[in-house]
Amino acid sequence: MRRMKLSRAFTLIEPGPAVWVTTREPPHDNVMTISWTMVVDFKPLFAITTGAWNHSYAALLKQRECVIAVPTVDLLDRVIGVGTCSGKDTDKFEKFGLTRIPGRVVGAPLIAECLANIECKVIDIVRKHSIVVLEGVAAHLNTARREKRTIHAVGDGTFIVDGRRLDRKKRMASKLPAGL
Amino acid sequence: MRRMKLSRAFTLIEPGPAVWVTTREPPHDNVMTISWTMVVDFKPLFAITTGAWNHSYAALLKQRECVIAVPTVDLLDRVIGVGTCSGKDTDKFEKFGLTRIPGRVVGAPLIAECLANIECKVIDIVRKHSIVVLEGVAAHLNTARREKRTIHAVGDGTFIVDGRRLDRKKRMASKLPAGL
Repeated sequence: MRRMKLSRAFTLIEPGPAVWVTTREPPHDNVMTISWTMVVDFKPLFAITTGAWNHSYAALLKQRECVIAVPTVDLLDRVIGVGTCSGKDTDKFEKFGLTRIPGRVVGAPLIAECLANIECKVIDIVRKHSIVVLEGVAAHLNTARREKRTIHAVGDGTFIVDGRRLDRKKRMASKLPAGL
Repeated sequence: MRRMKLSRAFTLIEPGPAVWVTTREPPHDNVMTISWTMVVDFKPLFAITTGAWNHSYAALLKQRECVIAVPTVDLLDRVIGVGTCSGKDTDKFEKFGLTRIPGRVVGAPLIAECLANIECKVIDIVRKHSIVVLEGVAAHLNTARREKRTIHAVGDGTFIVDGRRLDRKKRMASKLPAGL
């Protein structure tokens, strides 16, 4: 994992991939699969929808930090596995063979197998809507990885894999943030 | 456009496509391009990030309703066009040749060229984070459309087109909402 410019971290989440969110939960850590996420600010700020129905939520409240890890299509079966069992009774890192790497800023672990990891602090919780607002504080990219296609959960049990990438940078120039 | 089960409408937004949001703004209507969206509840509820920097925001506050329209890859240039000019001085429906269809519940128009349209009511605004929470109240799908691939804005001026769809319905069964 190489350091990635924080000002580019929002581009990992804006396309809407299913992601993992890791939390530090002594005696072991935990990870959940989430696809209800959005960018809220280029800073970057992110919103995720989660609540007490996710075992990770208690740790998120307590530690006030997490890592958003971005898996690719070769990890789909593990994405589903992580999303269909609970940290309450499972050490998911062990069960799914995921390798933890220490973060630079937060206590929650990065996931070595992922394309990218964003270390985040919880900056607000909008309880009424189960929205947790996160600020990205460090970002890491696995530049050696050949498989870069992420997956998008449809919500009906199917997943869409990234297809072609179309370049419209010139036409979008007026809308791109400085420092990209 | 055919009526679509409202309980399935979240599956249009969960994969994270760039969308259009239409608003009723007499004397003409307006439309903006947004990719900062997420599902908040299966009901469905959606969150979108927008604020006074978008001309549509004033109408959204005033009318308290909108339509989320889902364009496909053949509309990419119009998605960019809509996203890089302002309703302040442009009738975007006219400029980009978009055909309005009256909604069933809300005053904001559906867009005939799109794959799908979700009529929404504004149910809350979290001003601190510029998050608008919407409830879907009717959904429509263009079942005759052959092009179904949506587009995902990366945020750096590139766009990812939907690729393959992988079926994991059996393994996801425990997580799928009833009534899908």
